Amino acid sequence: MAFHVYDTTLRDGAQQEGMNLSVADKLAIAPLLDELGVGFIEGGWPGAVPKDTEFFARAATELNLKHAVLAAFGATRKVGVPAADDPQVRALLDSQAPVITLVAKADIRHVERALRTTGSENLAMITDTVRFLTGEGRRVFVDAEHFFDGYRYDADYAVECVRAAFDAGAEVVALCDTNGGMLPDWVAEIVAKVRAAVGPDAVLGMHAHNDTGCAVANTLAAVAAGAEHVQGTVNGYGERTGNADLITVVANVELKHGRRLLAGHGLEEVTRIAHAISEITNISPYGRQPYVGASAFAHKAGLHASAIKVDPDLYQHIDPTAVGNDMRMLISDMAGRASIELKGRELGFDLAGQGDTLGRIATRVKQAEAAGYTYDAADASFELMLLEEVGGGRPEFFSVESWRTIVERAGSRGTEATAEATVKLHAGGERIVSTGEGNGPVNALDHALRQALARVYPEIADFELIDFKVRILDQMQGTDATTRVLIESTDGERSWSTVGVGPNIIEASWEALTDSIIFGLFCRGVAPR
Amino acid sequence: MAFHVYDTTLRDGAQQEGMNLSVADKLAIAPLLDELGVGFIEGGWPGAVPKDTEFFARAATELNLKHAVLAAFGATRKVGVPAADDPQVRALLDSQAPVITLVAKADIRHVERALRTTGSENLAMITDTVRFLTGEGRRVFVDAEHFFDGYRYDADYAVECVRAAFDAGAEVVALCDTNGGMLPDWVAEIVAKVRAAVGPDAVLGMHAHNDTGCAVANTLAAVAAGAEHVQGTVNGYGERTGNADLITVVANVELKHGRRLLAGHGLEEVTRIAHAISEITNISPYGRQPYVGASAFAHKAGLHASAIKVDPDLYQHIDPTAVGNDMRMLISDMAGRASIELKGRELGFDLAGQGDTLGRIATRVKQAEAAGYTYDAADASFELMLLEEVGGGRPEFFSVESWRTIVERAGSRGTEATAEATVKLHAGGERIVSTGEGNGPVNALDHALRQALARVYPEIADFELIDFKVRILDQMQGTDATTRVLIESTDGERSWSTVGVGPNIIEASWEALTDSIIFGLFCRGVAPR
Repeated sequence: MAFHVYDTTLRDGAQQEGMNLSVADKLAIAPLLDELGVGFIEGGWPGAVPKDTEFFARAATELNLKHAVLAAFGATRKVGVPAADDPQVRALLDSQAPVITLVAKADIRHVERALRTTGSENLAMITDTVRFLTGEGRRVFVDAEHFFDGYRYDADYAVECVRAAFDAGAEVVALCDTNGGMLPDWVAEIVAKVRAAVGPDAVLGMHAHNDTGCAVANTLAAVAAGAEHVQGTVNGYGERTGNADLITVVANVELKHGRRLLAGHGLEEVTRIAHAISEITNISPYGRQPYVGASAFAHKAGLHASAIKVDPDLYQHIDPTAVGNDMRMLISDMAGRASIELKGRELGFDLAGQGDTLGRIATRVKQAEAAGYTYDAADASFELMLLEEVGGGRPEFFSVESWRTIVERAGSRGTEATAEATVKLHAGGERIVSTGEGNGPVNALDHALRQALARVYPEIADFELIDFKVRILDQMQGTDATTRVLIESTDGERSWSTVGVGPNIIEASWEALTDSIIFGLFCRGVAPR
Repeated sequence: MAFHVYDTTLRDGAQQEGMNLSVADKLAIAPLLDELGVGFIEGGWPGAVPKDTEFFARAATELNLKHAVLAAFGATRKVGVPAADDPQVRALLDSQAPVITLVAKADIRHVERALRTTGSENLAMITDTVRFLTGEGRRVFVDAEHFFDGYRYDADYAVECVRAAFDAGAEVVALCDTNGGMLPDWVAEIVAKVRAAVGPDAVLGMHAHNDTGCAVANTLAAVAAGAEHVQGTVNGYGERTGNADLITVVANVELKHGRRLLAGHGLEEVTRIAHAISEITNISPYGRQPYVGASAFAHKAGLHASAIKVDPDLYQHIDPTAVGNDMRMLISDMAGRASIELKGRELGFDLAGQGDTLGRIATRVKQAEAAGYTYDAADASFELMLLEEVGGGRPEFFSVESWRTIVERAGSRGTEATAEATVKLHAGGERIVSTGEGNGPVNALDHALRQALARVYPEIADFELIDFKVRILDQMQGTDATTRVLIESTDGERSWSTVGVGPNIIEASWEALTDSIIFGLFCRGVAPR
């Protein structure tokens, strides 16, 4: 059978402190996981968490996954209740997920002290629930919770739980280091013993947490001992110290052992995918993250700088392009130019052979990114920059004389604040003054700007702002910090993104708002009036 | 002989992107490492780096280390030059460090391509330099650079380098995974073979980098294979993905294998020490860091909260007090009454047996979280809510009459926008009107509010806003979306976080700002004036 790469970013990853994923967030992350090429996406716990119920309902119609199969997470039936009568179990069926992953207790102490039942009732709960769900035509995986701690306390009981699951028809039993306290030697020994106990055909999996800093190594140890199913999360998200970082696990196995795990070629895009997911979770990427971190292939200029240029393979453990990352020292050299040339081609500018122009744009991109701009997520702003550099300049649809926004709360706690904005600009040969209201200053500016331009550029009526993201850079500077605003707009046919940066959130928003409208008009072939 | 814990935070750790340690920083970090109980502190490269020369000069008189011995890092002599005549080698002697750690090439490809010399000259460089320095009465350790890659390419040559070092009198040879590409199985196998080649009395060490996410596991694998010297850095600082986190390595060996490595009882203080060092390096602590991270013992899942209350040992891999950390319960919409009771206890409210109150608070938390609030990242806002529900109500330090903020840009593209804010409030029996400017509307409001309260509550002068985060919820609604603002503040002794939510980003920020000041004053025991 094929090796399973089982992603639980949307379920166990969402347990991370400070992470709170909406249904829309989950629906946006799932296609990125699919693009990465994972085999399974655990979407949440339908029935127990209302927004997870909604996720599965919407996933059925809104998601179009190429590789990945959705899995719903849930628990074995309650003590003393038939599986078919347990509403939590029925909700798993109702989710329509083709795979159901059941968490089952495998540590006798948890059975007795937390579940407050007997070892034999817990075994019956496993058997009944697996049998019921497989009988309904679902593939059933079992997460043997606290397995390793349980095994070290009472190995026989822990193995009995695993056997019960397989005997009832479970396709996989994932051994969970729920508290994360294991070390690789222990994992290797225990997985080998379980493998011997359950026989060579049973598919064992590994679910690791990083409390000893060994989640990746523990997962690799389990694979070496015969596990054929690995669970983890993108960017190692998860409760406490996080889950095993699925990216690192997969990159290690694929690039170090030459064993293909992912469908498609997602590994070559994993740096972009990891960062795109962190934009959605709004958790700053960790610079030192293996493979995909911004620093992962960054070399501080020093002793070996010239040698690195001549012979990079001597100084890096893999070719960074294998994971879509870059050696940082080369970013302003050929690699930077090459990617700008490629990007330009994608946008309709042929820059082949224009070394000076490419060098100038590369420098400008580098300066802008150092100041906080990001063009990965703002194609339209990058294209406006290309227009300035090589395309005859930015189209001047309007010129702004001034703008102002006022937010005030006229009363004490409980009174609602009001926001209004005034924009003064010139377009179509006229001077236009327009005031808009909104539920916040950016919304008010957006209204004022659209209203000001509506008569001269009626095309704007089709434009809609569909996403607005704010990220604080340099977080340690409090309200003094630099702000980055990303805006996504649509005209119903295509969508585009723009970026604004500055210490003033309103000014950064204004930059992204005006660029959005300029780009939208430019794309529709509108000429400045 | 005793096991060596060898810290290289001040040398290899300082290679981290964005880290720039002054001599004063290094002099402040060294005593903290000593307090932790490491055996050796590698202070830098005297002779090659001027501030490291100064560090060793000042360390001799200014540092008073209880346990740790200082080590100076340097290289073997230059090609074709006697060790005694090499100024870089002489500078190591001049540093007066009792231990000198020499980096030596152990990969024949690096010898030939980067050093541009022969294998035999490299061996002579090792022999001569070690012999010269031991002859001068110094203890000499050797870092065998690129050892593992070198061994996999040409094992005989790599082992010859190690032998040359020992034969010349080196006390330790540390095998370095300089590029960080090793996996634990490979390390275990290679260290065992080297151990067999050099005999049981030779002291082997391990120096790991985290490029495969396995630095800690690789170090443990080397120890299991017979290494008795481990190198690493506090908080895993270092180039690219960082070095092995010495804290995690030591905690794993001490707490999991029961083997004492540190002098004194520093492990029980390691959370404080790790954070104190991050204050000096000015690199934000990583919340998910094993053992010492702020999230390392934080529990969110509602499922487990009731059981955690009864039996915490079932849900954590070690007792957090063993590393000076604490268990924390995170309040989220998944939390039930049990976690609110636990959180209340943590904050000093005994809610045991108060079912109705707990139910009321749980409902309020769920409603607030549905509206966009998040308490797992905003302890202080949760505590203010508890004060309203079961304490004596929110302390009324001031009452706000109104506030207003204006952001305007008086000119066209390129002109800078200005922000000002006016706050009208009552405190200390007076009506106060205060106007502040800032580089953005929230910064201006923050200034106006602090200025308004400064005379009545001079304690506010100690408060500092250290983190400001904005998250747009329901992103698909464009600038109409709900905004969540999280603010972290400190008074120099403790830090606290507050949350504000609303469609208007300014209003949400105002909520978090005012809660932050109210909570800060409350904690200081200030009474409303």
